Amino acid sequence: MNKITVSIALGAAALFLAGSASAQVKPEDQIKYRKAAYSFASWNMGKIKANIDGAYDAAQVRAAADAVAAVAGSGLGALFGPGTEKAIGDQKTAVKPELFQNGAEVAKLAGNFATAAAALVKAADSGDAATVKTAFGDVGKTCKACHDQFKARN
Amino acid sequence: MNKITVSIALGAAALFLAGSASAQVKPEDQIKYRKAAYSFASWNMGKIKANIDGAYDAAQVRAAADAVAAVAGSGLGALFGPGTEKAIGDQKTAVKPELFQNGAEVAKLAGNFATAAAALVKAADSGDAATVKTAFGDVGKTCKACHDQFKARN
Repeated sequence: MNKITVSIALGAAALFLAGSASAQVKPEDQIKYRKAAYSFASWNMGKIKANIDGAYDAAQVRAAADAVAAVAGSGLGALFGPGTEKAIGDQKTAVKPELFQNGAEVAKLAGNFATAAAALVKAADSGDAATVKTAFGDVGKTCKACHDQFKARN
Repeated sequence: MNKITVSIALGAAALFLAGSASAQVKPEDQIKYRKAAYSFASWNMGKIKANIDGAYDAAQVRAAADAVAAVAGSGLGALFGPGTEKAIGDQKTAVKPELFQNGAEVAKLAGNFATAAAALVKAADSGDAATVKTAFGDVGKTCKACHDQFKARN
């Protein structure tokens, strides 16, 4: 892992913890936006998987990796504010209440996600499907690690 | 506009048209993912606006600009496939049917979005709020241009 990758990961963890003081978002919109962020990441992970399993399009994989990294680095912690522990109206959430009581652990997991996503971008730059496959698997593990602890349903 | 920016814009327009042959996504999931993508972009645009209007955090603005650019470059055209012209079950959509009959115009608008988003990333790199404000306004215009033509409600 190089210095830039470490810096991105620590930055993302810091962002996760710090939240976004400058952009106050209503609790129901926080839930909406965090689900959108993970859904957008999921679509892009799916594209990468399809490229690994089928015809490999390096440009598409790179764009998808950028998207996953952008989600990981977007400061998602700001979307887990007070009042977002459970559904608000139509905005359902699968988050476990434990997430809100384990800030340090969540920040660590978020940092792992950002580190793995940055490595995926680097792997995508190589244009080598096998390299991307390994990095993709590593990102998937960081997704699962957080879901296992803090997501109520999968 | 430099060569890289033009290349990104043309690439995004091509991706918008070409779709994603390698990742077949169910029509209802296409609607879900495209709404997620725009919602994620909207959150990040909101963060940039909050930074322009209030305390300016260059790192947050750069991350948010990356997110907007990642959405613009993600090949959203793949999420406007056959059967996604109207709601499927609970997956509502605000798209106008006209979008599906105007591929060239949509690709042009998508290319404008990608060009403006790439310029926003470059502006964010400058760390100058006034420069970002201009680039942010330009991105907003490309959002509005497409919404005005192809979005039923705002």
